[in-house]
Amino acid sequence: MASTVEGGDTALLPEFPRGPLDAYRARASFSWKELALFTEGEGMLRFKKTIFSALENDPLFARSPGADLSLEKYRELNFLRCKRIFEYDFLSVEDMFKSPLKVPALIQCLGMYDSSLAAKYLLHSLVFGSAVYSSGSERHLTYIQKIFRMEEFIIHSPDFEAAKFWVGNMGKTATHAVVFAKLCVPGDQCHGLHPFIVQIRDPKTLLPMPGVMVGDIGKKLGQNGLDNGFAMFHKVRVPRQSLLNRMGDVTPEGTYVSPFKDVRQRFGASLGSLSSGRVSIVSLAILNLKLAVAIALRFSATRRQFGPTEEEEIPVLEYPMQQWRLLPYLAAVYALDHFSKSLFLDLVELQRGLASGDRSARQAELGREIHALASASKPLASWTTQQGIQECREACGGHGYLAMNRLGVLRDDNDPNCTYEGDNNILLQQTSNYLLGLLAHQVHDGACFRSPLKSVDFLDAYPGILDQKFEVSSVADCLDSAVALAAYKWLVCYLLRETYQKLNQEKRSGSSDFEARNKCQVSHGRPLALAFVELTVVQRFHEHVHQPSVPPSLRAVLGRLSALYALWSLSRHAALLYRGGYFSGEQAGEVLESAVLALCSQLYKNLWGAVLQESKVLERASWWPEFSVNKPVIGSLKSKL
Amino acid sequence: MASTVEGGDTALLPEFPRGPLDAYRARASFSWKELALFTEGEGMLRFKKTIFSALENDPLFARSPGADLSLEKYRELNFLRCKRIFEYDFLSVEDMFKSPLKVPALIQCLGMYDSSLAAKYLLHSLVFGSAVYSSGSERHLTYIQKIFRMEEFIIHSPDFEAAKFWVGNMGKTATHAVVFAKLCVPGDQCHGLHPFIVQIRDPKTLLPMPGVMVGDIGKKLGQNGLDNGFAMFHKVRVPRQSLLNRMGDVTPEGTYVSPFKDVRQRFGASLGSLSSGRVSIVSLAILNLKLAVAIALRFSATRRQFGPTEEEEIPVLEYPMQQWRLLPYLAAVYALDHFSKSLFLDLVELQRGLASGDRSARQAELGREIHALASASKPLASWTTQQGIQECREACGGHGYLAMNRLGVLRDDNDPNCTYEGDNNILLQQTSNYLLGLLAHQVHDGACFRSPLKSVDFLDAYPGILDQKFEVSSVADCLDSAVALAAYKWLVCYLLRETYQKLNQEKRSGSSDFEARNKCQVSHGRPLALAFVELTVVQRFHEHVHQPSVPPSLRAVLGRLSALYALWSLSRHAALLYRGGYFSGEQAGEVLESAVLALCSQLYKNLWGAVLQESKVLERASWWPEFSVNKPVIGSLKSKL
Repeated sequence: MASTVEGGDTALLPEFPRGPLDAYRARASFSWKELALFTEGEGMLRFKKTIFSALENDPLFARSPGADLSLEKYRELNFLRCKRIFEYDFLSVEDMFKSPLKVPALIQCLGMYDSSLAAKYLLHSLVFGSAVYSSGSERHLTYIQKIFRMEEFIIHSPDFEAAKFWVGNMGKTATHAVVFAKLCVPGDQCHGLHPFIVQIRDPKTLLPMPGVMVGDIGKKLGQNGLDNGFAMFHKVRVPRQSLLNRMGDVTPEGTYVSPFKDVRQRFGASLGSLSSGRVSIVSLAILNLKLAVAIALRFSATRRQFGPTEEEEIPVLEYPMQQWRLLPYLAAVYALDHFSKSLFLDLVELQRGLASGDRSARQAELGREIHALASASKPLASWTTQQGIQECREACGGHGYLAMNRLGVLRDDNDPNCTYEGDNNILLQQTSNYLLGLLAHQVHDGACFRSPLKSVDFLDAYPGILDQKFEVSSVADCLDSAVALAAYKWLVCYLLRETYQKLNQEKRSGSSDFEARNKCQVSHGRPLALAFVELTVVQRFHEHVHQPSVPPSLRAVLGRLSALYALWSLSRHAALLYRGGYFSGEQAGEVLESAVLALCSQLYKNLWGAVLQESKVLERASWWPEFSVNKPVIGSLKSKL
Repeated sequence: MASTVEGGDTALLPEFPRGPLDAYRARASFSWKELALFTEGEGMLRFKKTIFSALENDPLFARSPGADLSLEKYRELNFLRCKRIFEYDFLSVEDMFKSPLKVPALIQCLGMYDSSLAAKYLLHSLVFGSAVYSSGSERHLTYIQKIFRMEEFIIHSPDFEAAKFWVGNMGKTATHAVVFAKLCVPGDQCHGLHPFIVQIRDPKTLLPMPGVMVGDIGKKLGQNGLDNGFAMFHKVRVPRQSLLNRMGDVTPEGTYVSPFKDVRQRFGASLGSLSSGRVSIVSLAILNLKLAVAIALRFSATRRQFGPTEEEEIPVLEYPMQQWRLLPYLAAVYALDHFSKSLFLDLVELQRGLASGDRSARQAELGREIHALASASKPLASWTTQQGIQECREACGGHGYLAMNRLGVLRDDNDPNCTYEGDNNILLQQTSNYLLGLLAHQVHDGACFRSPLKSVDFLDAYPGILDQKFEVSSVADCLDSAVALAAYKWLVCYLLRETYQKLNQEKRSGSSDFEARNKCQVSHGRPLALAFVELTVVQRFHEHVHQPSVPPSLRAVLGRLSALYALWSLSRHAALLYRGGYFSGEQAGEVLESAVLALCSQLYKNLWGAVLQESKVLERASWWPEFSVNKPVIGSLKSKL
């Protein structure tokens, strides 16, 4: 397969036009085409090419650089573009089942073009659509044709603070919404939140339905192509049939029935649909980082400043400082992108089980594990991207502050990824609670640490792991993600034990469970959740790049990317490694720091296949001059003169 | 003085209207009016009130919330507003000399209204004006009336990459510019960069002068009320008299003359004018953080989420996590604002010496010390603000992402503070070089560490300081900025020694000075410069809040703010404290972490005088609903319904 493309299929991966980056490119020790094939696979490359080619050739997607679009105009354009994406029908249902990774790939391609488009498409097709699909039953598949019946529920927002904000697509155009409301049946019995499908606007006039107060929340920091709305319901009557009844239903007589025996089990089963949003956000965040890093690295390879002598100026990428600022984020793109895909496939497994009615213990455990991983990887990916874009913007100096260079748009569009589905800090508590629950189960019931995806299995050996020390004494021995893996395992065990002890201590001194958890979260629960998910990301990428099927010529570069992400992430926990005794003496910290710098220095000379392989695709979806290989940032200004 | 205001002058500091924050306000153990008087002084409060009242009552400064201003319209408005500020003439030259702190206070007031306005005013009046004033001589004070003579210089940009970008005010309206160009006299002798005043546009038509290519660089991420330009010069002839000749001049015969004997001394003297930009940026950054923290704390005190029971929801500020996210930035506002004022007064002293022709060694040393402090405090202040605004935005959840809540504008407008005058990372090298120079002087010449502002004097005791250890074993003993001061002194000594050794080791192994410095900067020079400036900030604020003139009722709250900023900043260096052996064992790190949390918890209950004292002034300069005490963020939406 590789040879086909390398040999002749230049239509799929054509050569780069010549330009100022040639000098760097010539140094690469591997074929960027081979790396592209290994990372994506030929089928996926073709799929992405189809999407990008369609957008490139459709005037509706032409950019008008410099044009100051009004909010209304931008939203209208985004609505039309989203509609056009549905018309293109890039992904058939059959194809989706055969190659599920094409779903996030499609969203990423749209997001590379414009985050607002990706968000609008995702919300409409996947969030709204899949909520109806996965929570409802057959009667809802033909929902629109159904007529209102006489059995009705009343949906009511008791006061202003109960209004729901931020509903994507609701500001201007949505006609129906899935509303989670407390389900109360006669006799005043309440059964917690259940989803209803509710008509909120007349599809012809777009005026709100009686009792519904719905509107646009106004201009945001970014994603202004998307209309976010608020809604309040004043005693709105909806038919019984509009209850999405997979988790629980109400008979015509008014009796509540549920396939789940207890509330806790019903809750566990519903975690799957919560996870899908978080998993999508990981993917949306990473695409922003991918774009930002490509822009900043290209700029750094062509922008010259100062040098060893007054006469000679060198590209800023030659400075160890610039390498240290940017290359770890390139490594993060690779590690997190791989993790994002693998977690998506885990989620597909979970949803298939749900669809087939699997009520096994394994299925429930899988739901919990994915929920724990998604609740921490969404914060990790969105924060890494937030910080990475900021670093890229600053590393490009004033040019990074020019709107045309897109780093500002990327930052603004990525920002909601940090607070969607609940603030990142709050979500991390879900993950630390999961781990604490496993430890309590082990302590009280002697249970083993076992999970379907094996992310927690290593914890079984925690007393032994806690006795380990960092014993690498030379930088050369440190240049491997295995070193970071061992350290991360120790760190998670240490933080888990400390958090557990601190929590029990707080409870013994009279705190309620609510208070005790809040008191432990900053210093214990938060770092525990982050360390656990970083370990999982590092572990999966480490295994991926060390599998036998990796082409020999790619092993060095992939191994370095894996080691750099792992060690750089780990270095942010150096204080804890010292505090708990895994590190001791000056050397440990020095070796870790030097290893990160050494990997940056090794990689920058040899990364151009990697970076440009990504950007090669991007530039076709973007008509902004900074994306063109021959026109780095400063060149784009030149062409304006 | 305090009693006058507290007793009767409610016009200067009127009571707050009643609102949802009353419950928190009632808890404060001190009088916010007393704190306002201590922090600002009565004269300054009156000065600010004059400015804000003028803006409030002038329709030109009315906001139009929700209006989508075009770039052109925004710039036009900003130009008119800037012109109006000159007409108001808030600050006479006499007043400026009597109360120099009114200069940054005026800029801050304008910046609180709109950063673009502050930047435009600052660039026109202070940067351009003071460059002419401090580099030129009497002939330039009446420059505009002077006619062109025959003795001319030729200013020429050899190629496109030599074009100058980002010149503030140059995009659309500037008619004259100060241009730094290499000064070459007959016989091909060159004397380095010298400033010239050059006419770039015809003042009537605003068309470029012959040979000048000048234009607007386009839309930016923020500060779009300011027109930034680029300029290239094609063999432009300017008269000899346009050389700003304080540092060097050319006789009519073409001979170069300078009052300074050697190049190095001339360079040292010119550092003063470099510092003034950096000192201004510290002040501009802090005002953005001040606004962001006030917005986020108000939101957190009124926004309720979850609670100990299903029925009771508590304000999010009650959560230790929210306190930990926001309160350190409130403390940073106080510490950095104080530092910013004190450094500005140091700069005034330097400039007075320069104006009076002082060529003493002390004057030169003062220039170098201020340059070192300004080059590191500009990065510290701009980064703290960047991170603080981001934290505030996320801590307000979705509401922080609404444009009307201003956190996005603050973030975008603050951003260039991170890259103005050179990227922050590059500027930090100036500071580490200064410290390394002093150590080399001590090692080779046995010189003492002494500087006019005494920021380096403690280094004289460095061998003894390096033997110290952290010996605080209880959280209670840690709640004081003195603990952090001792640790910071150790840290600076440690990093200075390590950097010096690493630099020499690199040179011994064959690196040139250029290479060696670049290799040491990430791991050594950068943290050294940051630790040194943080120490200085902590030291100055510690002394300020412990001086005998602090009213007894304010000592507790000011002491806590000082301790929180100091310990929170220090905690980011915990890995280095362990690595170098100042910290050992689990307890050290735990005590530091617990002290930060304890201070957050003590302060949040008792800070409302402090926060609202700031916001009280702000809301008068802003008509955005979120600034009104009675209308926190969620209320502003309510009023829209």
